[in-house]
Amino acid sequence: MRQRITGTARTEALASLPAWTEVPGRDAISRRFTFADFNEAFGFMTRAALLAEKMDHHPEWSNVYNKVDVTLSTHDAGGLTDLDLAMARAMDGWAGG
Amino acid sequence: MRQRITGTARTEALASLPAWTEVPGRDAISRRFTFADFNEAFGFMTRAALLAEKMDHHPEWSNVYNKVDVTLSTHDAGGLTDLDLAMARAMDGWAGG
Amino acid sequence: MRQRITGTARTEALASLPAWTEVPGRDAISRRFTFADFNEAFGFMTRAALLAEKMDHHPEWSNVYNKVDVTLSTHDAGGLTDLDLAMARAMDGWAGG
Amino acid sequence: MRQRITGTARTEALASLPAWTEVPGRDAISRRFTFADFNEAFGFMTRAALLAEKMDHHPEWSNVYNKVDVTLSTHDAGGLTDLDLAMARAMDGWAGG
Repeated sequence: MRQRITGTARTEALASLPAWTEVPGRDAISRRFTFADFNEAFGFMTRAALLAEKMDHHPEWSNVYNKVDVTLSTHDAGGLTDLDLAMARAMDGWAGG
Repeated sequence: MRQRITGTARTEALASLPAWTEVPGRDAISRRFTFADFNEAFGFMTRAALLAEKMDHHPEWSNVYNKVDVTLSTHDAGGLTDLDLAMARAMDGWAGG
Repeated sequence: MRQRITGTARTEALASLPAWTEVPGRDAISRRFTFADFNEAFGFMTRAALLAEKMDHHPEWSNVYNKVDVTLSTHDAGGLTDLDLAMARAMDGWAGG
Repeated sequence: MRQRITGTARTEALASLPAWTEVPGRDAISRRFTFADFNEAFGFMTRAALLAEKMDHHPEWSNVYNKVDVTLSTHDAGGLTDLDLAMARAMDGWAGG
C-alpha cells in the first residue's frame, strides 16, 4: 500500500504545487483548471484519464464547459501519496503551469 | 434562443426519462450513471463530449472512477429545453437504458 | 520480454478470434470494426486507448468516419503475444462481438 | 455543398500550410504529426475528434504510438474545401505549429 506523505515532505510537496490548495477536513488537494473552451478542457481530461488508467489512480473531478475542478487523494492510503503528487504535476504540465 | 419546456410538455418529457430526477431549486434534471469501471465511464464521457460539441450544449458533470453524475439545463434559456432532453436520451441509450 | 505465441497455442488463439485475420508477411492480426457513426467509433477508440496505456501496448490503427482498422502485434517480441490477444478480446467485447 | 478551392486561392492556402503536402493522385493534403508519446498523440486526436463532430467533417487518419498521420479532403466536394483548411489550421495550432 502507498504511504501517506506527512511532515516536512508534505510541506515541501505542497510548496512545489502552488496552484493546488488543501481541501478542508480531508487529506486531499484540489485545483480549478480554466481553459479556452470545452475542446481544450476535454482534451486535457482525456490526457489525465489516460494517465489515471496507467497509474491505476483516478481523480475526483467535475467539468462545466471550460472549467475542470480536480480533487486528488489516495483512497487506499487515506490521504495524499506520491501518486497524487505525480498526477498533480502532470496536470499542471498539460495545462501550461 | 431555445424555448423552455413547460406545462404538459414538460410533464410528459420527464415521464419519458424515468432515470432522471428534477434538481431542487433549479429547472434542471440530473442522473447518476454507474459503469463497470473507469474505462467504461470515460468511454461514455467521450461519446457525450462529442455530442455536446456537435450540439453546442454541454453538461455539468462529475466523475469518480466508475460513476458519472450529470446535470442538464440550458443556461441561455434558464431551464430545460429540447437540447437537454436530446442529451439525456442519448446518454441513456449509450449507458444501456 | 513477452514470448511469441507459436504452434498449437497460436492456432487455438486465432480460432478463438474468428473476426480477426492474419496479416500477410507479418506475425500480426487485423480486424475492421464498423460502427453506426463517428461518435460510436471514437468512443470505442477512447476505450481502446485507455487500455493501451494501462497495458503499455498500443495498436496500429486507422479511422475513417465509422470504420476503425486495427492491426495488433508486439514489436518487442517480433510477433503475436498474449498482449495482442488480450487487446483483441477487449476490442471485440466493446464492439459487441 | 461546399465549393472546392481552386486556382490562386488554392495555391495561397497551401502556402499558408507549409507542414502539409499534397497527396499524389487526389485533391487532398496530408501531414504527419509526431508527439512525445501516446498520451500526447491521443489527446490531440480527441481534440480533433471533437472539432470533427462540431464541423461534421472527419479526417482520414492513422496512429502508431506517438505518430498521427492525417489526410484531409472533402468527399462531398471531391477535393479540398475551406473545411479542410480549417481542420488543418486547428491541428497545426494544437500540435504547436
